[in-house]
Parts: sequence; C-alpha cells; structure tokens
Amino acid sequence: MTVQSKTAARPNSVTTGPIIGSRKVYTSPEGRPDIRVPFREIALDPSAREEPYRAYDCSGIYTDSGATIDLEAGLPPIRADWIAARGFDKIAPRTVKPEDNGNVGTAQAVPACPADIAIYGARPGQMVTQYEYAKAGIITEEMIYVAHRENMGRTKMIDGAEARVADGESFGAAIPAFITPEFVRSEIARGRAIIPANINHPELEPVIIGRNFLVKINGNIGNSAVTSGAAEEVEKLVWAIRWGSDTVMDLSTGRNIHNIRGWILRNSPVPIGTVPIYQALEKVDGDPSKLDWEVFKDTLIEQAEQGVDYFTIHAGVRLKYVPLTAKRTTGIVSRGGSIMARWCLSHHKESFLYERFDEICDIMRKYDVSFSLGDGLRPGSNADANDAAQFGELETLGELTQVAWKKGCQVMIEGPGHVPMHKIKENMDKQLRECGEAPFYTLGPLTTDIAPGYDHITSAIGAAMIGWFGTAMLCYVTPKEHLGLPNRDDVKTGVITYRIAAHAADLAKGHPAAKLRDDAVSRARFEFRWEDQFNLSLDPDTARSFHDETLPKEAHKVAHFCSMCGPKFCSMKISQDIRADAGRMAGLEEKSKEFAEKGKHIYLPEVAAE
Amino acid sequence: MTVQSKTAARPNSVTTGPIIGSRKVYTSPEGRPDIRVPFREIALDPSAREEPYRAYDCSGIYTDSGATIDLEAGLPPIRADWIAARGFDKIAPRTVKPEDNGNVGTAQAVPACPADIAIYGARPGQMVTQYEYAKAGIITEEMIYVAHRENMGRTKMIDGAEARVADGESFGAAIPAFITPEFVRSEIARGRAIIPANINHPELEPVIIGRNFLVKINGNIGNSAVTSGAAEEVEKLVWAIRWGSDTVMDLSTGRNIHNIRGWILRNSPVPIGTVPIYQALEKVDGDPSKLDWEVFKDTLIEQAEQGVDYFTIHAGVRLKYVPLTAKRTTGIVSRGGSIMARWCLSHHKESFLYERFDEICDIMRKYDVSFSLGDGLRPGSNADANDAAQFGELETLGELTQVAWKKGCQVMIEGPGHVPMHKIKENMDKQLRECGEAPFYTLGPLTTDIAPGYDHITSAIGAAMIGWFGTAMLCYVTPKEHLGLPNRDDVKTGVITYRIAAHAADLAKGHPAAKLRDDAVSRARFEFRWEDQFNLSLDPDTARSFHDETLPKEAHKVAHFCSMCGPKFCSMKISQDIRADAGRMAGLEEKSKEFAEKGKHIYLPEVAAE
Repeated sequence: MTVQSKTAARPNSVTTGPIIGSRKVYTSPEGRPDIRVPFREIALDPSAREEPYRAYDCSGIYTDSGATIDLEAGLPPIRADWIAARGFDKIAPRTVKPEDNGNVGTAQAVPACPADIAIYGARPGQMVTQYEYAKAGIITEEMIYVAHRENMGRTKMIDGAEARVADGESFGAAIPAFITPEFVRSEIARGRAIIPANINHPELEPVIIGRNFLVKINGNIGNSAVTSGAAEEVEKLVWAIRWGSDTVMDLSTGRNIHNIRGWILRNSPVPIGTVPIYQALEKVDGDPSKLDWEVFKDTLIEQAEQGVDYFTIHAGVRLKYVPLTAKRTTGIVSRGGSIMARWCLSHHKESFLYERFDEICDIMRKYDVSFSLGDGLRPGSNADANDAAQFGELETLGELTQVAWKKGCQVMIEGPGHVPMHKIKENMDKQLRECGEAPFYTLGPLTTDIAPGYDHITSAIGAAMIGWFGTAMLCYVTPKEHLGLPNRDDVKTGVITYRIAAHAADLAKGHPAAKLRDDAVSRARFEFRWEDQFNLSLDPDTARSFHDETLPKEAHKVAHFCSMCGPKFCSMKISQDIRADAGRMAGLEEKSKEFAEKGKHIYLPEVAAE
Repeated sequence: MTVQSKTAARPNSVTTGPIIGSRKVYTSPEGRPDIRVPFREIALDPSAREEPYRAYDCSGIYTDSGATIDLEAGLPPIRADWIAARGFDKIAPRTVKPEDNGNVGTAQAVPACPADIAIYGARPGQMVTQYEYAKAGIITEEMIYVAHRENMGRTKMIDGAEARVADGESFGAAIPAFITPEFVRSEIARGRAIIPANINHPELEPVIIGRNFLVKINGNIGNSAVTSGAAEEVEKLVWAIRWGSDTVMDLSTGRNIHNIRGWILRNSPVPIGTVPIYQALEKVDGDPSKLDWEVFKDTLIEQAEQGVDYFTIHAGVRLKYVPLTAKRTTGIVSRGGSIMARWCLSHHKESFLYERFDEICDIMRKYDVSFSLGDGLRPGSNADANDAAQFGELETLGELTQVAWKKGCQVMIEGPGHVPMHKIKENMDKQLRECGEAPFYTLGPLTTDIAPGYDHITSAIGAAMIGWFGTAMLCYVTPKEHLGLPNRDDVKTGVITYRIAAHAADLAKGHPAAKLRDDAVSRARFEFRWEDQFNLSLDPDTARSFHDETLPKEAHKVAHFCSMCGPKFCSMKISQDIRADAGRMAGLEEKSKEFAEKGKHIYLPEVAAE
C-alpha cells in the first residue's frame, strides 16, 4: 500500500502497512499511560499454545494500519509536550540561504516541507541534553521510554532472563536482566550510552545506544551527484526503518539537501545523523581549502535547528596524523577525513574542528545534538587496519570525548572499516580504554577485501564479532559497497544482514530477550508451523517466497515435511516420535518391539510436488 | 558456453570456459614435470606493473578453454599412472542391482555413464591409504601435488610470508610459511590432515584438508524426492566447483542414484563425499528398522568401487545418547542421525555402525575412502547447542578416530550446526582434544535461528569464526536452507559466501598467501583499476554488473571516481595527492602554499551519468 501526497513535486509515496503476519501494538510503562511505546506483535498458530511474539519495532507509524500518513504535516510530535515542559526558548530560525540547497534553480527545486514546528534552543547554563539530565539525577521521559522499549514492553523480568544473561559472554559489559529507567539514567550519566534526541526533533521515538542495551544498526541514505532526488530519499528512510534500521544517516550532497533533510526529519521516527562537513563543502564550491569555521558553524546551526539528532564530526583528523597515511595501501577513505586532511595540508594548520571543538560542543549542546566522533582515518583495506594513523586518531577521539562530556554533550565514537578477524578485538579494547566506554559505532568491519558485490557479508562477519565484543551500533554495508549506489533491494538486504549481525551479538552477549525469538522460530520449525516460521523471521516475505519456489501449494504450509528431504523421509518427524515416547524412554526395553512396528510408518503418504 | 552430449537422456550440457578475466594455467613442482597443478591466472592492467595474480583453482578443466569436455568419456584420469604404479589388484566389479537405482522403471532410467575405468582394491596388508603411506614415510604424488597447490604454485617462499604467518592468530595451528611435500606427509601421518582420494577416482585433482592448510569448503548437491534429475546434478557439480567448492557431497536419494553418482564421479575433479546410509535406507524401502549390516556393507562396497572419496558414517549415534535428545527444542536434525536413532530404538540395540566399525574400516581402507565421522546428534537450533547429546557423540567420534587410524584410514570429523557465537570456540577446542586433532568439518554453524532465507549469512559468521579457530573444511549453507532446495543461483551464493568465510579465516590465521589477494584488490581499488578490481574479486560477474547498474559506460571503467561519491569529489583522489607529495611530507611547511593552490582542482571534470 502506498500513500499519495497532494503535490507532485514533493515526496509522493511511501510504503505503509504492517509487515505480513504482524500488527503494531503500543504498551506503556507502569504509571505512565502518556508514554506509548510501539512494538510489532507476531501472532502464532493456535496449535503453538504460545502468546504472540512481541518484537522491537523501529518502523514508526508507517506500519500501523490505523495511522494516517501525511508527509506534508509530518509525523505526530510525540515528544512535543515533554520538550515544552522543559522551558526552552523558542528561537527565531536561521534564514535559509540559497547555498543551503546548493543554489538550485527554480526548475529543479524541491520545496520545503510545510510541516510547521517551533524551533527551540537552550539558554547558556540551562540543562538540555540527556547527559546533563542524567548527571543531575533526573530521569527524562526519553529514558523511561527506552527502558520500556528495551524490555520489549514487559513490566517484569522475563522468565529465565538471569540465566540467559549468565550464559552469555559479554566481555565486561554489564547487561541487566531487566532494564529500569534508573539504569538507563545511570548509563547515560556514566557516558556509556546515549539517546540521540535533538529537542527540535519532536517526532522521534527515542532509542538508546550503548553496550549494555540491544545492539543497534544504522542505515545510510542520501542522494549523490550521480542519482536520486527528494521523493526517493524519504521512501528510502521509510523502507530502511521498516526492515529494522534503528537510526538513519542522511549523507546527501549537492542540490536541495536542506529541503530534503527537512522532509526526512519531519517524517522520521528514528534518530537522523548527518556529516555537516559535506554540506559545508558544498557551500564553498567543493574546495576544501576554502572551508573555515564560519561556514562550518553556520552549517551546524542550520542542521541543528532542523532537528538532526547526531553529527559526525571529524575532529580527530589532526595535522600530525596526515603524513602517517601516505604509505597506506588505500590512503584515507573517509570522505570527511580526506576533506579535513586536505584542509590541514592546504593551510598547514591544525584542523579547525579540533581547535574549535569547545565551540562545536556549545552549539551541539544547545539543541542536544549528539556527537558521533568521526574516524576520518579509518582503514580502507585490511592492509591498513590498526595502523598508527587509525589508532593515533582514536586516542585524540578519547581526548575529545572528555571535552564533550565536560561541556554536557552526548558522545559516541565511530570505528572501522576494514579489519581482519584477528585484529577486531584490539579495536574494541582500545576504544573502550581510550574513550572512557563511550558507545562505539562501527562500519562493519569488513573481514576481507576480495568480495566486492558481497560486502554486506564480508562485513556482517566483522560486525557480529565487534558487536559481541561491545560495539553499541553497527553501520550497515550493502552489497553495492565499493561498486555503486544501493537501490531499494540493496538497502533491504543491508538492513536485514545487519539485523542478523546485531542479533547474533545480542545472543552471544547474553541479552535476556534475544534468545526468545530464536527459540520461537526453532519451536515453529520443529512443529512444522511453517507460517509461524515465516512470520517470526526477519524477512517473512523472502522466507515464504523461498519456500513456495519448491512447494507452492497452500497444503504444503501445513505439511509435516519440507522440500529438503521430501515427504517420504523427515528427521524432524522421527525426532517427534522419539519425543512422544520420552516418558517411557527410561524403560527402553519395552519400546523395542513397538518401534519395530512403527518403523513401517515412518514415511508419510507421499505428496507430489507440482 | 555449453557443451552438448550426444544422448539426450544423459547429462547434456555443462558450463565451460574460464571465469571472466582469467585463464587456466598449470605449473609443476620442481623435478616433477609429470605433475601438472592447475591455477587460475588473473591478468592485471599494465598500469599496475604487477605480475598476474595466481589463484587456487578447483574448477577442473571445465574452465580450461583449451580442453575438450566429453561427459561420456569422463575427465582425463590424471592419477591413473600413479595408482597403477602402486600394484593394486584389478577387481571384478560388484554387479549393479535394480535396487541400487531405486528399482527405477526403464522409462525413467538414467543410463550408466559409459566412461570405462578399471576397478582396484588393495589386498589385506597392502599399503593403500595416504595415511598408511605417510606413516611409512613415503611421499605420494598426491602429497607433492597438494604441496604445490597450497603454495599457489610458487617454488620458493613468498616475500613476507613469515611476517604474515606471525601476524595471524592461529590458536595453536602450525601453519608454515612454505609447504613442502614432507610437511604434507608429516601432517597426514599425524592424522591432522587428509587427502580424500579413492583409488577408483583417478580423475581427481588432489586436495588436502587440515588446519595447517588453506581452509576448504564443501558444497552439497543431490536430487530429492521432490525435484531434479541426472543432467542437473552433473551441472550442479560443475557449477559449484566453478565458483570454488573444494569438495562436493552428493546427497541424492531415490531413483537412479547409482547411475547419477557414476556420471558425477567420472566427471569430477574434486573429492566426492556421500552418506551411504541414505542409499541403504532406499534399499529397504525407507524403513530404518529393516536396515542391517549386510545391506549397509553392500552399499559401502558399491559406492567405494564407484570411486567415492569420503563417506559420512554416523557411527557415533549410540543407543545411550538417543534419550538425551528427547527434551531438545529441535530433537535430531541430521537425517543420518535420525535414521540410526530410529534403528537403535526399534531394536533396542547398540548401533550396528558402532559395533561393526572395525569392518567398516577394513572396507574403506581397501579403496582409501576417507571417513567423515558424522555428527548425527548435532544441534538443530541455538537452544540445543553444546548439549550432552552433541558432546557425548563427539567423545565417541574421538574414540572411533583412534580405531580408524589403527586400521590405516584417513579421518575427519563433522561438526555443528547451530551455535551462538560465544559457544563456538568450545566446539573447536573439544573437537581438537577429543579427536586427536583430526580435521574438523563443520556445517556453518548458524549463529542465530531468526533469519530463514538468509542462513548463508547467519552461518557464514559462525563458519568464518570456527574456520579461524581451526576448522579445516566448512560445509556451505545456501539461502534456501530450512526452506527449499537450492537452485543454481542459490548454489553460487552459497559457494561464494563460504569462500568469503574460508578466506576470512585464512587471513586471521595468518596464512602466508591469503593476504596477497586482499592487497591486490585494495591496490586496484585505490588506483581506480576497475577491471582489475572486478576480475580479482570472488565473483567478477556480479561485481561488474553492480558497478554498471549505476555507471554503465565503458568510460566509467577508467574513471577516477565511482558512484558513491560521484565525479565531483573522491576521497581516494585526495589520498593519492597526499601520497604523491609524500616525499616532501617531512617538510610540510613548504607544502602549505602549493596545496592551497591545488585545492581548487580537487574536483575532476564532472561526467554526467545517463
């Protein structure tokens, strides 16, 4: 189902409706009926005699069949009352300049999103960030919201949760069996978790990023000089969150980016991240040497007022590190990193991002924009992994983390990139040590360079491992990485692949809720509840279509066999027979004869596949 | 290109011709011009100023543009002279019985492959297995062959090999910087490696499986009760080895399996494995309780004479372990395991495979069929991982390994299955300990159960990790696992995904040759040698087509940009500029001005994409 917008030139349709086999439900934390947290409820076959399975859901109201979507009005501002109660000043918005939209001509202009929100800013000294509230011992609505969300809406500890936590290996993480708002507060105060939540993004459904919570994933969207426009970008957002992208980075460059960003923010229930240096560079005609503090500062304010929740800031690319990249196999592969390296060399000066870091903090604090301290010197190949440039920058990011915390800001740290398996843990350990346990946010890492076209897989291996070791958020990689721009299918493949990596990490860490879903799928599999198996999977559409390629008939969906072994012989069926006799298993003697008889009937009646 | 066979009812076409961008080459070990070892040579652009890249190649002569393929004649028997020189008796072949082909009627019969080979068998006491030769201090042609193959045809140590070995983490493996035939012999004698090589499979290009060698992968083919026939099975073999399947298991059941197996063996350059109990069960009308030693023994001889290189034998499924599976979430999921469990319960007797293990060894030794000791009690879900049934069976497999070695047989051990990340290493450590370091051969493992449709990925994560920890061969999983039968695309996806896992493991272990390919790809990437990047990748066709989706023009293949950042801005280009100035990097002062000038030209002329 798609929803049409009224104006043709504007984003005109997005994917709506629930993922098949599920429906949107909302539950509230005890005593807070005003806080409604969304989940995706998957109904199971009555024969399962199980409660519906409740899944974490970051897809917003687009998957709520009862919701009305109006892209021009934007999403309901669920945080508006919370924010209003905090007493921030309404501020006069910065005037949009032609260069904000790349000086686009009228013919090609994307209009501004008409959704109207007040713009807020904190006064100097006024508490505004989740970090500041947490440090002051105050539990915000956002903290209550994420606690309930992380518990999958349960108000009590899940049965067996403590045992599952104990069964995992969390490498020093401290995952509790039940998440309280106070635990959330303490983790944020400690700097170990963040809730990216700009006070100018009232449509946000808060999400927490930290290693003592569920591992999150990010999907990237963005136009480029080569393709794409506004309509596709909003639909890309909706599509990415539908399949499970917890946050989305808008990496657009070129024309209309200010207005496209507006459409995205007003219609995004997930935190939106950007790399402001990209837009700043556009404003100086793409010449890095012309960048300066004024244009960058202006861009930060522009984007912060729009409601961007986190900024990638490459302040760790210091002049002294640039020569360390000269002998690398693949030099500098971060766009932001190479821009800043070029600037440093052009002027032979220390990076203005580094030198002005205090001022950057002040701006970001004012709106509670979280830092994502960029790894501009991340390796672009296995050959360059864990080298002096990369680790030098990481040490600087640790230093800047302390500055940002002192300024009251929320911080996470970006990480590599391309790292062979045996060098992954060193990255995590060093990051925890250097950056005071601030959340790590890594791109993959890719564990080999030899499979362009399959880098969602080369990187999922590394992502699962580093997630297990403690990374809080994994930035997805699509099959098109290194080759081209991802299309709709690539985005979905990237998101599902990273949901796998994040979930595998949650399982290995011993997250109390993670294993519930695996067990539900496994029970459905063992009991030949095919529809339940499809619906419980990360991608019911694909699971169902793969099954139907071989066995298309509806009757096969209740068949006690599958196409792997065929109807005549099925190991699961034998196991069920064994289980059925488990009660008398102790007295195996007497079973001997009976089984000998039953053996004849091990083959089910043959069903021809057409 | 496809080759037609003369008879329509027979396998009539297979995929031939080299993978794009490469050609088949053969090189010989020093002093042995009679031993010709195949490699795939990938030519690079002259601007690279690099030698062609030489890759391991298991695809046989199907990718040799100079070869003539005649499926009815079978492949050239390259081992025939070696085998003939060993003085085995020619034996009268066992007569083919109607039940060998599932009592198929004339109308549906697949004719026997007409290729004619002599059938050999060793006399009692006559040395025949690679293990026996190795123990006797004799280096066979097969050992010389695999040593040269593992060195990628190099006759000297590769530059930097020792450093790369030292850089890895091999968890106690002892990977040398250069492989000698004597090293191969010693590893086989030690039981740490096998060369599955039935003396009745003269067409085989020998391959070594052991943790001090390159990690290998296996692909499964086979008809089923639901689909498929002979023609497709041979093409599936050719297709699987084209993309890198080091061995292939034929898991066929039902009609024509004897004759289909004949076509496969006579046309297979890779070791072929089977699970004889599947065919034995067919011969007793699918009733496990009717199985007995005689029908099983007859099946072993039937398949050994045909030339099968390794047999999965589920002799570890002992009566006492069966009750341990009753309370599992997913019971017994191995077909062979459930057959034997049913047999044990039906008769309330110890498994005849366990009780007759000595005799099984004698039969397999006679032809040098290697053991793949089956893990019939492997977990079918994360919930059942590392349980008492699984580990009990593993201990029995360790006991049987010692028996098989005493009998002179080659042995590897099969492993799981479904295991969350934090429980993988325990599997490897226990296998090494219980089974005297015999090679481990695992299916995945899948690290989560929630993604049917993507189980190539859920399992690649576990496969890469367990390969790193010491598993010698990884059995592939396709996207259709748990849902249906893999088609051609699924087989390719499964093989490429497992080549990624195996290579990631080789890199992490510090295999001396592994990193060469990553570095070659990375250099090509950094230097914008697009064609080289495609051709060096595991799947050049996919890499090229993904690139061309966004930038189809031939001119873009030499462009110094890609669609990710577009022509206007490219981080690799900046890095190249930095590198170009690396010589003067020490005196950065003087560069400042120059870079400020050059900054303007950072944008390449814009090329419009149509």
